[in-house]
Amino acid sequence: MEGVNHQIILAARPAGMPKESDFELIESPMPRLRPGEVLVRTLYLSVDPYMRGRMRQNGSYARAVELGEVMVGGIVGQVVESNDPRLECSDVVEGMLGWQEYAAAPTKTLRRINASTAPISTSLYVLGMPGLTAYFGLLDICRPQPGETVVVSGAAGAVGSIVGQIAKIKRCRAIGIAGTDEKIQFITEELGFDSGFNYKSVQDYHAKLKELCPTGIDVYFDNVGGQVTDAVMAQINTRARIAVCGQISHYNSDSIDSGPRCFSQLLTKQAKAEGFLVFQYADRYEEGLRQLSTWLREGRLKYREDIMEGLENAPKAFIRMLQGKNIGKQLVKVG
Amino acid sequence: MEGVNHQIILAARPAGMPKESDFELIESPMPRLRPGEVLVRTLYLSVDPYMRGRMRQNGSYARAVELGEVMVGGIVGQVVESNDPRLECSDVVEGMLGWQEYAAAPTKTLRRINASTAPISTSLYVLGMPGLTAYFGLLDICRPQPGETVVVSGAAGAVGSIVGQIAKIKRCRAIGIAGTDEKIQFITEELGFDSGFNYKSVQDYHAKLKELCPTGIDVYFDNVGGQVTDAVMAQINTRARIAVCGQISHYNSDSIDSGPRCFSQLLTKQAKAEGFLVFQYADRYEEGLRQLSTWLREGRLKYREDIMEGLENAPKAFIRMLQGKNIGKQLVKVG
Repeated sequence: MEGVNHQIILAARPAGMPKESDFELIESPMPRLRPGEVLVRTLYLSVDPYMRGRMRQNGSYARAVELGEVMVGGIVGQVVESNDPRLECSDVVEGMLGWQEYAAAPTKTLRRINASTAPISTSLYVLGMPGLTAYFGLLDICRPQPGETVVVSGAAGAVGSIVGQIAKIKRCRAIGIAGTDEKIQFITEELGFDSGFNYKSVQDYHAKLKELCPTGIDVYFDNVGGQVTDAVMAQINTRARIAVCGQISHYNSDSIDSGPRCFSQLLTKQAKAEGFLVFQYADRYEEGLRQLSTWLREGRLKYREDIMEGLENAPKAFIRMLQGKNIGKQLVKVG
Repeated sequence: MEGVNHQIILAARPAGMPKESDFELIESPMPRLRPGEVLVRTLYLSVDPYMRGRMRQNGSYARAVELGEVMVGGIVGQVVESNDPRLECSDVVEGMLGWQEYAAAPTKTLRRINASTAPISTSLYVLGMPGLTAYFGLLDICRPQPGETVVVSGAAGAVGSIVGQIAKIKRCRAIGIAGTDEKIQFITEELGFDSGFNYKSVQDYHAKLKELCPTGIDVYFDNVGGQVTDAVMAQINTRARIAVCGQISHYNSDSIDSGPRCFSQLLTKQAKAEGFLVFQYADRYEEGLRQLSTWLREGRLKYREDIMEGLENAPKAFIRMLQGKNIGKQLVKVG
């Protein structure tokens, strides 16, 4: 295809909270297709907490984005040119194609989306990585049982909002922790969490958790870390399970993250804390997506998207998400 | 039976490291047997780190020993009077009968020991709780694979000394951390650990671990906690498994145990840390003891006992163990 492409590259490694100047919007030639590849035009791109780790010199669990390289990330888009019989023009696909208008990619790295089941943007949320992360982290690592108390931090975010709803489906009590009163209202009134609190206005996390979790905490799904997590850990029950999914409170810091060591508590409670990445479950994505689709169709999973328009605003949307200003999934509409 | 009994009771709740004056040796009437009970004369009693937790007002994972109550603990002894057809006089049994010369106990709370297989004191060590703790903690929680690097803290103690040897049986590299050069010599020269270091003389734990574990740490069996554990955690590999068995570095402290929070590391490495108690595996003790006996008979498990004589010296032996002065299993010979 002729024409120019637009891309957002990493221009500088941020110190602390990223700034818009850490990114740069550039023009580049339209990618050329090799055999087996398709050209995808981005419709929505996803901004997620993990991207902050990829901006570091040494990356985190995956390799770093290099300076000058297109920012990493998942997108959903439309095939506009195909060199592979398995995909046709106008097919909708999801893949890790980065912050750009157009990308060439081998078919095998893409997931074809059935645009008739649900809005295609959900393939970056409930029916995509965040949904799968919630599904496997909660069900596989934490194995919640009916009647148990499940606490979720980052509860109004992409992953947390699904975790609490799955906990409810599994007949648990779901308690969410988030950073504004509006988010708490959202998770309790719209999503059906039993309760929650705003960690920015509540002074005494311990007292609040005692009030909201009178029988203690059986499962903790942690997106946040820091003092919120310290307080939760102090109130876990015997044989509690903790899924460590994110530690966003520390992503913008270069200092050592110090606080109470948790091993004594793990020992006293014979509890388990496990870090995970959704990619560990790649061979079970189909199972997860099938179940999430069913719940979505049945109206048992609700969601809210927080959409910003224009590729050029991706850095702004990303920073906004890191600052906790989004409610529900932060997306950028590019198409 | 006529005569008097001798018991050691908890006289005061210790602040920090226990002192001999926190205990008191008393005379008491010989226990009277009820139906189904036997009278056991203690031959050896075990002193173990977990007892420190039981001396606290609020206990730890189990209820506290009350002031004036006999100190808790495992013993091996001989039946001297029986009100139950399942046990005869001179049978050897192991049970949680506490720091005393004689105790009455229902048969079902005792484990009969075959004195012809191994010295009876091993039922408090290799063929008892410490052995089972090592066995289930390492094999069930950590699932070590051939070629992996297993690090053990408290490596010359009752549990640690077995953990490293089972790691070797499972064809892993076993690295031990202990508090004297003599202990390191013991675990490497007598027990067959690949290597180890004295955390009291080594300055830079990180550099030392890098040197001894050039391919990183796959499994960590933690008896100690604190800065040793911080250093190990900084060098775990992806999908590392950590069994939290003890945190002896903090047992004598009432302050908050602060240090680097480990959740970021668990996340980055998709690692698991799990606290456990051997009692969780009660329904598998038979399996564990059978395997440990086989290894012992085959000469694949070696052990050393550190024996102090006389019930009156139990507090001294206990304090000695908490101070890390024992090499191998600290026992008190009472009979």
